[in-house]
Amino acid sequence: MARGQEPLVARGPPSDGSDDIEEEDALLTGQRTSKQAPTNNSVLRSRWKDIALFTWALLATAAVIVLAVVYQHSRTESPRGDGKIGNGADRPSGKRNLIFMVSDGMGPTSLALTRSWRQYTEQLPYDQTLLLDEYLIGQSRTRSTSSLVTDSAAGATAFSCGHKSYNGAISVLPDHSPCGSVMEAAKRMGYTTGLVVTTRITDATPAVFASHVRRREMEDEIALQMIGDTHPLGRIPDLMLGGGRCHFLPNSTGDESCRNDDVDVRRVAGDMGWDYISTRKEFDGLGTNPKLPLMGLFAYDDIPYEIDRQYQGDTYPSLEEMTRTALDALSAATADKDQGFFIMIEGSRIDHAGHGNDPAAQVHEVLAYDHAMAAVLEFIKDSATPTLMVATSDHETGGLALARQLHPTYPAYLWYPGVLANVTHSASHTSHEYHDYLSASRLTSNMRGWLTTLLSESLGIHDPSPSEMASLIDHPALASYTFADMISRRAQTGWSTHGHSGADVNIYSSDPVAARRLVGNHENTEVGDFLRWYLGAEDEVEKVTKTLRKHLEVTDDAGEGKVWLGSVPESSERLDGQDHMDHYVGDHKKRGEHEGCEVLTFDHTQNDARKKSINHSFAARQLKRVE
Amino acid sequence: MARGQEPLVARGPPSDGSDDIEEEDALLTGQRTSKQAPTNNSVLRSRWKDIALFTWALLATAAVIVLAVVYQHSRTESPRGDGKIGNGADRPSGKRNLIFMVSDGMGPTSLALTRSWRQYTEQLPYDQTLLLDEYLIGQSRTRSTSSLVTDSAAGATAFSCGHKSYNGAISVLPDHSPCGSVMEAAKRMGYTTGLVVTTRITDATPAVFASHVRRREMEDEIALQMIGDTHPLGRIPDLMLGGGRCHFLPNSTGDESCRNDDVDVRRVAGDMGWDYISTRKEFDGLGTNPKLPLMGLFAYDDIPYEIDRQYQGDTYPSLEEMTRTALDALSAATADKDQGFFIMIEGSRIDHAGHGNDPAAQVHEVLAYDHAMAAVLEFIKDSATPTLMVATSDHETGGLALARQLHPTYPAYLWYPGVLANVTHSASHTSHEYHDYLSASRLTSNMRGWLTTLLSESLGIHDPSPSEMASLIDHPALASYTFADMISRRAQTGWSTHGHSGADVNIYSSDPVAARRLVGNHENTEVGDFLRWYLGAEDEVEKVTKTLRKHLEVTDDAGEGKVWLGSVPESSERLDGQDHMDHYVGDHKKRGEHEGCEVLTFDHTQNDARKKSINHSFAARQLKRVE
Repeated sequence: MARGQEPLVARGPPSDGSDDIEEEDALLTGQRTSKQAPTNNSVLRSRWKDIALFTWALLATAAVIVLAVVYQHSRTESPRGDGKIGNGADRPSGKRNLIFMVSDGMGPTSLALTRSWRQYTEQLPYDQTLLLDEYLIGQSRTRSTSSLVTDSAAGATAFSCGHKSYNGAISVLPDHSPCGSVMEAAKRMGYTTGLVVTTRITDATPAVFASHVRRREMEDEIALQMIGDTHPLGRIPDLMLGGGRCHFLPNSTGDESCRNDDVDVRRVAGDMGWDYISTRKEFDGLGTNPKLPLMGLFAYDDIPYEIDRQYQGDTYPSLEEMTRTALDALSAATADKDQGFFIMIEGSRIDHAGHGNDPAAQVHEVLAYDHAMAAVLEFIKDSATPTLMVATSDHETGGLALARQLHPTYPAYLWYPGVLANVTHSASHTSHEYHDYLSASRLTSNMRGWLTTLLSESLGIHDPSPSEMASLIDHPALASYTFADMISRRAQTGWSTHGHSGADVNIYSSDPVAARRLVGNHENTEVGDFLRWYLGAEDEVEKVTKTLRKHLEVTDDAGEGKVWLGSVPESSERLDGQDHMDHYVGDHKKRGEHEGCEVLTFDHTQNDARKKSINHSFAARQLKRVE
Repeated sequence: MARGQEPLVARGPPSDGSDDIEEEDALLTGQRTSKQAPTNNSVLRSRWKDIALFTWALLATAAVIVLAVVYQHSRTESPRGDGKIGNGADRPSGKRNLIFMVSDGMGPTSLALTRSWRQYTEQLPYDQTLLLDEYLIGQSRTRSTSSLVTDSAAGATAFSCGHKSYNGAISVLPDHSPCGSVMEAAKRMGYTTGLVVTTRITDATPAVFASHVRRREMEDEIALQMIGDTHPLGRIPDLMLGGGRCHFLPNSTGDESCRNDDVDVRRVAGDMGWDYISTRKEFDGLGTNPKLPLMGLFAYDDIPYEIDRQYQGDTYPSLEEMTRTALDALSAATADKDQGFFIMIEGSRIDHAGHGNDPAAQVHEVLAYDHAMAAVLEFIKDSATPTLMVATSDHETGGLALARQLHPTYPAYLWYPGVLANVTHSASHTSHEYHDYLSASRLTSNMRGWLTTLLSESLGIHDPSPSEMASLIDHPALASYTFADMISRRAQTGWSTHGHSGADVNIYSSDPVAARRLVGNHENTEVGDFLRWYLGAEDEVEKVTKTLRKHLEVTDDAGEGKVWLGSVPESSERLDGQDHMDHYVGDHKKRGEHEGCEVLTFDHTQNDARKKSINHSFAARQLKRVE
């Protein structure tokens, strides 16, 4: 039989039906069959048999290898998991980076708001979504131990420690003892660490990763802990970019400082090796491999809202720019290290726009966050080190609704994104402009004309009503709320509060497979659990907690945790940051600080009749004066 | 060499290093090697070689088979997919059932509301979620072609046809031509079909699956199409359970009918083979294998809100009970068929509670829906036929927020589920009681005392304010809104409208792998696409559309689609169902129908000053009278 004419799997033609079985039996037992001893022909046939068998075996083995590889690959691409499905089996074992993004105060409705506004302004079809929309994997439940409505401190502590705590807690537990944060553990394990925000770097969300205090408003202390000066473990972050430099300057510097003491945190940091920058020019000069530790604080308090910052790019970097710089820096710093990096990047002021009930400021904030996420995803795509992005919010702010019933007739089913498209400045910024004007030329006869121009140029509103004008003129201190309300009414967007709300918030990830423990609906502490799990920091976090508690024993003996954690709050204290920080004049705190402002007061007894007529009315926007 | 002493994969000991290669080469080429011709010993060795080779090949082949099966299994358990990942490869090919659940008007915030209320009432820990929460897989974008805020008709048409259309459209496209629905296609393919709702069976969500009209309020016609009488394809549903029997009775039956004509749809249906039932007793007598087609209409219009129905279980079955009965019936009916069933189950009145801004009614509706989903999941677990559950909402209603700023001071971060736990009846039902009282004994001197008792017993409110009492007494027609507002304020839940809003809504599935095309954020039409894809009905839907259009040509010639689709709406017509159905007195339509009611009217010009002081105030609840 010539080569190539034999079937691949052949054992020679059977002489009768039983031969086959007989021969196969022989093959299996190793006994000779009753067939004649091999002739030349039979030897050749046996050879062919060998070849065929070997080929079969080889092919099958090759198939095993291919299938095993494909299966392994499919495993790593494998199912979603809610908490039930997920397990520790699929965490990368080697060097890896984790990018945790937080959209402070962004509820699910903010997405639909921003998406439709962008479609309107960029003339996009209705199915053109935000980048964020493509990475939705689940939702997070946000309540704290002290309320169904969390503040950012308790919300962020759930991320940093993986534990629920009370509103106002900065990585301390309900018993007021410190809990180790995932960034502290990561740092001790050799990860390089970073924090990027658009609010004060000492605000609750960044603070929880690198400090521990019992009241979020202890930002003077937080600043010292974050540079490593008073932190029991020394310095945690290698990189900090954002605002809030007023807490780093001694109060002897006057208006530049918001500290209650004369400590020059910037100088202390310098002594500890930190590089400090505060200008756009310095930021631009950083390059892709700046020396760490590096602190860039580009604003006295918050970096301006994106809707305003877009005209001040020479002064303030955007969230996207800070994100790109931070990722370059951390990537360069870890290039030759065994461990990667862990960074938290926050779109901080989505929350502030919610507090201000300013939908125009909010859509720009959400889009800026979307752009920062684009930068993150681009980095991940190009990174040689496996890098995962997980993103969520700490809570919803404002009770935003994409519909608003403006009058007693049955409401139309609509809202108007075009109104937001006409706005060029935040209500807050417009209010600043108005206050500056009043300071310079109060009570000029042309105030109405000036205001009309301001409304037209900054808010795109050309039809102020007499009562709106009267409100602005009679209550200039409340102008920011009036401006925001004028926009919201015209856009028919609704708000239920100037505070936070208890809605679930969205979870996103660059890789729904790697992050499948977060697919579905989860407690916010599960996000924290995930962060430590992904970094392999579970044990280290526990060790950090023990170390911190030991430190607490010492300091508490010396005077109830002073200054480190601060004293245990009184049960009657309001801790969510809204009755404190009186020196801080951020947008949602700035109310009634102008002279001559009539501040309406109401009986707040829950069933007081007058509440009914003023709730959610303009009068309700008139918030009590901060003393 | 004795048997068992040879290595499994052996080709005899090589005489030198090259032999092995030479022999292998020979095996591959089929040529003899330079070795001596086989001796007895070599024959035996060759035998062993054969055995070893064969064993190797067999083992490798077995491994291939095992791996292939495992891989295939892992594929079907494989990754989430947003639209990008998903493809048609993993749809079950054999007999299967599809259960599509709709939570009308339920936004993401309704879940957090209901979850916390349930935890409060049942004393559960904070991580004890609703069943729904465990099955979250994504979110849906809801806008229609005519507005950023959809109505239920356009929302449901996205599900039935997989196309966006205008508010008010019942499975017709923006050009007013009919589009084939997934249920029509399924029916023609041999699936058994069902509809279960708690509102009128002729309301928009069920209607789109089995009828086509150009205005959703054409419910008289919808009833005739749904039984198959005037539907161009004949009867589509095999089972219909819900409310709305008034559209099935001739107007000669007086108050029992809400038809504008004297057609006895019930009788026509009977002539077509339908079994008709309308009482709890008949429902209970159905057993697990009732004769189909079957229509059970248990209420004149809506089945009462669950919060009220719980006291009227003798009269009305619950959504869960109807769901169990329907699944049993469809399962029995398809037991011996090649095709399974397709059913749509709607928690219809979550939406109504939103329209009424009644948070207490809403939590009971959501929980009832949760219980219905539990019944569905139980069915799926026990079903021999592969069955998939996919669930979503058509839109959010009310702009619900879990926080409400009641006064001008900075809002506390909280809301009170305990207030909802004290409520035992809907605001709507309580209003009915009040109206009944007024009809019987109007202007008695004891009205205040009677009202105080009503508030206490039905709403758990023991501290009505003087102005709340005055509102109830002066404006009894608006009592339902006043009651709902009294609850909402005390619970500190916010609402922005009595209509719908543009928020994204959640998507759930019993199997996130099978439904992975819907994991993430999706257009509502993608839900429709998924339904037809899962049923393998893509082509059939297109065929149905063609057939319907052909029918339209004939009927349009005979008078613009009369009565079938109805005439093309005027551009000025309001089509979302809120200016129509004047005969319908559902909760969110029932306003100002009592004599002596002072109805406030306002100038609705967008910038009118007075709006500002009344928006979202109690006055804003005073909706214009339905003529």
